[in-house]
Amino acid sequence: MIADPLPSWREGPNKKAIIDYVTAATTEGGPGHVPSEARFAIFDNDGTLWAEQPIVQLEFVGTRVAEIAERKPEVAADPAVKALLAKDLAFFKGKDGEKHAMELLALVSSGMSPMAYEKEVEAFFANARHPTLGVPYRQTTYQPMIELLQYLRANGFQTWIGSGGGIDFMRAISGPFYGIPPEQVIGSSGSYDVALGNGQVDVSKSVATARVNDHEGKVAGLLLHAGKVPVFVAGNVRSGGDIAQLAYSQASPHPSFQLLINHDDGEREFAYDEENGASLAAARAGQWHVVSIKDDWERVFADP
Amino acid sequence: MIADPLPSWREGPNKKAIIDYVTAATTEGGPGHVPSEARFAIFDNDGTLWAEQPIVQLEFVGTRVAEIAERKPEVAADPAVKALLAKDLAFFKGKDGEKHAMELLALVSSGMSPMAYEKEVEAFFANARHPTLGVPYRQTTYQPMIELLQYLRANGFQTWIGSGGGIDFMRAISGPFYGIPPEQVIGSSGSYDVALGNGQVDVSKSVATARVNDHEGKVAGLLLHAGKVPVFVAGNVRSGGDIAQLAYSQASPHPSFQLLINHDDGEREFAYDEENGASLAAARAGQWHVVSIKDDWERVFADP
Repeated sequence: MIADPLPSWREGPNKKAIIDYVTAATTEGGPGHVPSEARFAIFDNDGTLWAEQPIVQLEFVGTRVAEIAERKPEVAADPAVKALLAKDLAFFKGKDGEKHAMELLALVSSGMSPMAYEKEVEAFFANARHPTLGVPYRQTTYQPMIELLQYLRANGFQTWIGSGGGIDFMRAISGPFYGIPPEQVIGSSGSYDVALGNGQVDVSKSVATARVNDHEGKVAGLLLHAGKVPVFVAGNVRSGGDIAQLAYSQASPHPSFQLLINHDDGEREFAYDEENGASLAAARAGQWHVVSIKDDWERVFADP
Repeated sequence: MIADPLPSWREGPNKKAIIDYVTAATTEGGPGHVPSEARFAIFDNDGTLWAEQPIVQLEFVGTRVAEIAERKPEVAADPAVKALLAKDLAFFKGKDGEKHAMELLALVSSGMSPMAYEKEVEAFFANARHPTLGVPYRQTTYQPMIELLQYLRANGFQTWIGSGGGIDFMRAISGPFYGIPPEQVIGSSGSYDVALGNGQVDVSKSVATARVNDHEGKVAGLLLHAGKVPVFVAGNVRSGGDIAQLAYSQASPHPSFQLLINHDDGEREFAYDEENGASLAAARAGQWHVVSIKDDWERVFADP
């Protein structure tokens, strides 16, 4: 008897569909076979791999933005800064909100080397706790999704992150939290200032926000960073930000799998909807697999 | 007795240095050990993996630019277009020249889907021949460098391309020519237009040139695409465009290797210098390994 690869998933159509897909993908000569070079899976991060109430990177930037705003009145007057300091999370939920979040991320990282920035992020995660769950953020990652990442990798899939989060922010934790190396993280990205002098290369993050990796931008991110079409995409209901990436996988010539997480468990996690219902409508039209946290997950969060 | 991993390299200090480095990198517990997650090698393309006299992608865009220029007078009046049609290759050799080359590449690809563009590039390589060597371009790749790529991969190194060439142009051939998958190609990149409608995602290349992956831009490309520092970098003498990428590898905490190809074999390949000698000066200062095509390579080009 083979051990259950997804022990935190309850038996049901979604767990069965995942295992059927992966089994068929790896069955040479079968109708669902996916060649190994095409086994490319991509996961949203906020609300798909970890909880997004609140959005973690906003918590990270909060402290640093508050410090800067105290010194600089023009920063304090910025609507995004005001919203952040007032914990007005609704401000950051729409399409423009994501862009404002990226601007704040740039504000607190501008001029830092990516390595110094990574150390700041690591220090945050070593000390911070989720404001309502009271645990380190690592324990707000979803155990069923971590098992899914491992299951896919064990079957020859590359597992990537494709998220609206800042690329360097997520790279600092993608390895320890998810087993995903930095080159397999696609996120919103600013630019880098590079100076060469006396054989030394100095690098720093720049405030210029070059690309927001959300909505259609997630497909642009795939084209830029991966240059290939995913066959397995996971996202979640909230802003509609994953629709394009999910739909794009259906352009693959190979069998593909679309997984959309619905946050319907206010007891164990958080319950929230999407204003216009676009993600669930797209899931119905595209026959995507809608995962109910309440029904499909035996456990929600990862162990310490 | 172990088979020679680099049969097209002549015995000498450079071949020995490569083998010594890789042997030490893979010797656990030794002073030259490089952990497997840090075994990250990156190669320039033009003049490092294949011949750059003429620059291959300029040959590719030449035919298509000529067609567009016949229809559009404002295109025909562009200095870069004039230079291309007059085969004035000197125009494209400097830092700005690379940028002009990227603009022309964008001109001929704008509005095309990356997949359609890839098919055009593949068709070019199926039919075109090098203007003076008279062989398909695949036979203008360097056999010693292909052996080096294979040798590094066999020892657990990821092998990437980091080149000024257009990212989608190189991705079309990186697999068949070099065994390098699309996600391990870093190049100059425009943007992508993405439109989502009725569950369908339409993508096309945009004329906007977002980033030139040359000189310091190669380090920015590494930060954006890989998020880690290479320990093995190969480039070549011509424009100084590889200096920053080579120097950056010396910021790695692990033992690193810098290889700079000097084109000094006018008989078997092409002999040319760099105007200001900056690459060779940087090699002396940084103790990089300067490879002489004339002296170090027993064979130059790959077999059919």
